[in-house]
Amino acid sequence: MKVGIVGANGYSGVELIRLLSQHPHVDIDMLISHSTSGTHIHEIYPHLCGICEKKLEQADADEIAKRVELVFFSTPAGVSQGLIPELIEKGIRCIDISGDFRLKEAEQYEKWYGRECVANPDVLQQAVYGLSEFTREQISVAKLIANPGCFPTATLLGILPAVELGLIAPHTIIIDGKSGVSGAGRGAKQANMYSEVNESIKAYKLGSHQHIPEIEQAITEVAQQDVKVTFSTHLVPMTRGILCTIYAELKASQSSEAIIEAYKSFYASSPFVRIRELGHWPTTKEVLGSNYCDIGLLADERTNRLTVVSVIDNVVKGASGQAIQNMNILCGWDENTGLTMTPVYP
Amino acid sequence: MKVGIVGANGYSGVELIRLLSQHPHVDIDMLISHSTSGTHIHEIYPHLCGICEKKLEQADADEIAKRVELVFFSTPAGVSQGLIPELIEKGIRCIDISGDFRLKEAEQYEKWYGRECVANPDVLQQAVYGLSEFTREQISVAKLIANPGCFPTATLLGILPAVELGLIAPHTIIIDGKSGVSGAGRGAKQANMYSEVNESIKAYKLGSHQHIPEIEQAITEVAQQDVKVTFSTHLVPMTRGILCTIYAELKASQSSEAIIEAYKSFYASSPFVRIRELGHWPTTKEVLGSNYCDIGLLADERTNRLTVVSVIDNVVKGASGQAIQNMNILCGWDENTGLTMTPVYP
Amino acid sequence: MKVGIVGANGYSGVELIRLLSQHPHVDIDMLISHSTSGTHIHEIYPHLCGICEKKLEQADADEIAKRVELVFFSTPAGVSQGLIPELIEKGIRCIDISGDFRLKEAEQYEKWYGRECVANPDVLQQAVYGLSEFTREQISVAKLIANPGCFPTATLLGILPAVELGLIAPHTIIIDGKSGVSGAGRGAKQANMYSEVNESIKAYKLGSHQHIPEIEQAITEVAQQDVKVTFSTHLVPMTRGILCTIYAELKASQSSEAIIEAYKSFYASSPFVRIRELGHWPTTKEVLGSNYCDIGLLADERTNRLTVVSVIDNVVKGASGQAIQNMNILCGWDENTGLTMTPVYP
Amino acid sequence: MKVGIVGANGYSGVELIRLLSQHPHVDIDMLISHSTSGTHIHEIYPHLCGICEKKLEQADADEIAKRVELVFFSTPAGVSQGLIPELIEKGIRCIDISGDFRLKEAEQYEKWYGRECVANPDVLQQAVYGLSEFTREQISVAKLIANPGCFPTATLLGILPAVELGLIAPHTIIIDGKSGVSGAGRGAKQANMYSEVNESIKAYKLGSHQHIPEIEQAITEVAQQDVKVTFSTHLVPMTRGILCTIYAELKASQSSEAIIEAYKSFYASSPFVRIRELGHWPTTKEVLGSNYCDIGLLADERTNRLTVVSVIDNVVKGASGQAIQNMNILCGWDENTGLTMTPVYP
Repeated sequence: MKVGIVGANGYSGVELIRLLSQHPHVDIDMLISHSTSGTHIHEIYPHLCGICEKKLEQADADEIAKRVELVFFSTPAGVSQGLIPELIEKGIRCIDISGDFRLKEAEQYEKWYGRECVANPDVLQQAVYGLSEFTREQISVAKLIANPGCFPTATLLGILPAVELGLIAPHTIIIDGKSGVSGAGRGAKQANMYSEVNESIKAYKLGSHQHIPEIEQAITEVAQQDVKVTFSTHLVPMTRGILCTIYAELKASQSSEAIIEAYKSFYASSPFVRIRELGHWPTTKEVLGSNYCDIGLLADERTNRLTVVSVIDNVVKGASGQAIQNMNILCGWDENTGLTMTPVYP
Repeated sequence: MKVGIVGANGYSGVELIRLLSQHPHVDIDMLISHSTSGTHIHEIYPHLCGICEKKLEQADADEIAKRVELVFFSTPAGVSQGLIPELIEKGIRCIDISGDFRLKEAEQYEKWYGRECVANPDVLQQAVYGLSEFTREQISVAKLIANPGCFPTATLLGILPAVELGLIAPHTIIIDGKSGVSGAGRGAKQANMYSEVNESIKAYKLGSHQHIPEIEQAITEVAQQDVKVTFSTHLVPMTRGILCTIYAELKASQSSEAIIEAYKSFYASSPFVRIRELGHWPTTKEVLGSNYCDIGLLADERTNRLTVVSVIDNVVKGASGQAIQNMNILCGWDENTGLTMTPVYP
Repeated sequence: MKVGIVGANGYSGVELIRLLSQHPHVDIDMLISHSTSGTHIHEIYPHLCGICEKKLEQADADEIAKRVELVFFSTPAGVSQGLIPELIEKGIRCIDISGDFRLKEAEQYEKWYGRECVANPDVLQQAVYGLSEFTREQISVAKLIANPGCFPTATLLGILPAVELGLIAPHTIIIDGKSGVSGAGRGAKQANMYSEVNESIKAYKLGSHQHIPEIEQAITEVAQQDVKVTFSTHLVPMTRGILCTIYAELKASQSSEAIIEAYKSFYASSPFVRIRELGHWPTTKEVLGSNYCDIGLLADERTNRLTVVSVIDNVVKGASGQAIQNMNILCGWDENTGLTMTPVYP
Repeated sequence: MKVGIVGANGYSGVELIRLLSQHPHVDIDMLISHSTSGTHIHEIYPHLCGICEKKLEQADADEIAKRVELVFFSTPAGVSQGLIPELIEKGIRCIDISGDFRLKEAEQYEKWYGRECVANPDVLQQAVYGLSEFTREQISVAKLIANPGCFPTATLLGILPAVELGLIAPHTIIIDGKSGVSGAGRGAKQANMYSEVNESIKAYKLGSHQHIPEIEQAITEVAQQDVKVTFSTHLVPMTRGILCTIYAELKASQSSEAIIEAYKSFYASSPFVRIRELGHWPTTKEVLGSNYCDIGLLADERTNRLTVVSVIDNVVKGASGQAIQNMNILCGWDENTGLTMTPVYP
């Protein structure tokens, strides 16, 4: 199958190239970038020399429709809302790694993203939220997949089973997220300079992160009640990786062992979720470069709270890897096709 | 004043040397180390060449009492319980950076530290908990100061004002702590090797960290009710620094601005606590190498929760710096004597 | 083909597992480790959960010969000298990532490794030095391949073409090597603790590194004259990666462009060596996780010296990747079978 | 003494603030910045809250002359050439941390800095090269001090004694420099983003670095012969620190011990240079935050070459610290006044 990547010159874009170059059923036919069209991708990213040396092109819906069957979007906020409706109309399936189609209500988008929502409400409703482990069926027939954000992926895979199984009180959920710097993209910002980030940890966007409504929307749907969460994000001096520590009150006393078993059952047919044994906590390094989400759990009887630790590689399971997983589901291929790489350790 | 350092060959020990070498009223007369006695400190730490080249000695209470007036302990768990009572009897004042005298109840120590408490209960009661900003008066007349742990320092400076001012419900406190690796000391452990820690974040000791009873004891005292907290610790790929994110339910709706003002008043005469303006969050780099504790605050009306972010340099305000601050209070010197160094930035 | 890994619990061992799990013609049948036999590999390395959960076994030549056709050794100095001769006799092909069979003269081994050489001189002579790009023919018929060291790989791929093409005066070669910490293995040593390595660079083993005779032996053979080199190694705060900067006097004035072209021709049929254009210098990140060796070149007419910058991932091309490349050559498979992974960037 | 800082909002500027805030004889009276005038320094650098909260001002020669006696320049290339001549005329002493007055020949400046030299040739000749350990006498009477670059400081302190003592052949000098990222300043450039620099080492500006003519000028003067050097720079994933490894042919066979003794004598009255014992090599961490330059030496009889390893904190001895050292010499104060801080370790 021929695919294209819009926003190919960003980190999620080159990660799609890395992963798709190992995919047996896919050829990358188009690399699209507004800001760097005309140059070749390996001139911007020398690590791709000899692997992918395609020229970056301008986005043109007709041209795209002529050459590829499916398009990945790894673009800044606002871009895909403009281009995707036209492509869908032409029968091109789209997987959007940006946040443009994740929120079902336009006002929510406008409030949290601070920009106008120009997407057609119909298309917004059509978009399937691509949290693979939870929406496989809808994904398999989708025209447009809204790939989840990196923090929401780690958070929801960590806490949704407890919500669905009725173990916790949803309105008590507090999420403390920690992310590597690659999540901020490749644009040159002073705050993300090496000398500013190294040997430092900081909190940012507390109470105002655009992933808050996305997390609440997903939990609300599963909990079948309106849920508000406290969600804090921290920047950690590392390139890749997200770790979310999630706290919630247990509805009833439960042993850690029982909860761990419940999670194992829940994810029994999900090849990318690995539940750790009691007392073992995952590290982001243990999933680096891979599509895994590793989860550790503790039910603390002293405080009657559940603590969940969930780790992913933000560029893989939190972006490009999950996008490919969704493509696999959509195309009827094995969910882990092209995604069986072992984490790079150390 | 002549002072000695027991456990001089650890990170807190050499940090005491760094800081005391700038102190106008103190001479370091004895460096004591069980494991490395006989060698010179600059042979172990070449950065001290030409600055401090003293020979490390064995601990001998008589010798110590003859030569110094005050002793700092930066020793592994269990060491100071053995030596301090004898020194106090000889009239030597002691500041213990280890956890040996922080918990008032021996059973708590035995439960959380996993070792027998051999300290005389009287001495245990005599020990003053040296959270400088909260116990100045007791410190000023103490014979033995139990210097707070690194996580408790960041946590308590961050949340105790809210407890004391009655802003929050103490039993809802959740603390998400993140620490650099130096907190684990200099001993060679596989888990703290560079290749294991770098480009990774992990949770550890969830629900079982020995700082939990210390935090609960301090909050319980201020809240005047029995308080249990959820406390999680994470290892971050950096050498120095602790950031604690603390969550609690607000008793009544409050604006962030009002809380920030309340904290500023609370700490008005505390030179080392700096409260950030609304929307500004401190980073550990902004206190690196200094004795500051910087605090940011948010009252989120969506969730009715308070979020506090508190940062310190774990080796300074979280250990050796606060020990010197306590010495200053004890000796009647200005609290910031010898501690006015600017953070090293970047 | 069934293979075994002796020393499977070290970094090169788990990297073999990572890479071989993508190899179409190979099954890992035995994981062998003296120190951790009896445990399962994923208990030591949780990133392997669900990927490889084999039990580690003791080394037993008969058992090995019964179950596998080829054995990789990623063992500490001295181990493979003991076991390999027996295996070869039994017809098992061996690829030794350790330094035990690289030096042709036992005295050299004893001088630089500081330990007795117990290898049979015949076996020592039989061993083929596995610098894939230079010894393909011998590798293809070898019984025992001595896989090059990490620094020698980067150095020799960088400078041997200039030696062979007669561009430089071999006795003027100076190599300034920089390595990430993973090269030192997983053993817990104070010098490699995170807090000691982070935010620091240091030189080590100057004039005494065991890779010196290996480099000299290889250059001497190509130059057909006795060559001594100056070789310095530095530890850089990163996990993976080696960068060698190599200096030598040009025999005759040459343009950088001409030399770059000469190198491109030299490596035209070597899929893993990538020569950069003039003014472009490779970074270790651009080869991370891959088997590439990227090379930049400058002929400086001001000083009449050639400067070569050569980068590899020390765990891949500098160890396990090259070992698999050698296995491919030995087995008559395409040289890059199972090794086509794209560098992980960023 | 009242002083001003032009370019106060850069890393060298805030480091001057950090160091001068401990200096007993100096008050910072003016902070000057073209790009950020009007704001307060602690708004840009929150680590300065409560320490220095001055407003940044525009540069105005009359105003400066009215308010301060000495001005530090930590400005981008080209700035100080414009302002310093006017200030000198008004009797204000200037210490320029930028490269504007280091090269005696305008053509050299124009060739290597790629910009017009607008400095009056007289002023250029008047400028004293402020390598404190070598030019104390001229510094003590200077009107304008051209503070050395970071790489030249580490290089020259490392190799000039060998040149002056006639131990090595100057035309064989090769310098392999490694630097942390702070040397590139605070400006947002993609190449210095965390995700690009972390877990990577790279070479840059080979054969074209503007510090080459500065190093050659200084060696040429001491060697009293025209010297060209090979100088390569590498970017290391750390914030602070420079390590230069310097290679040169020995004129005559010498023991390492003899050379180490010669260096110790040479620097006997230089409080900031520390010579390591044989077999001990300095790390950048061992000088971090301090004004020290630590040096290790090896004379290798196998190759008849001298290897020198020299480390500094680029922001201190490589910039602001040496600037203050020069001010101390100029003002007749003890050379180490305000500069006795111990390195921050770990």
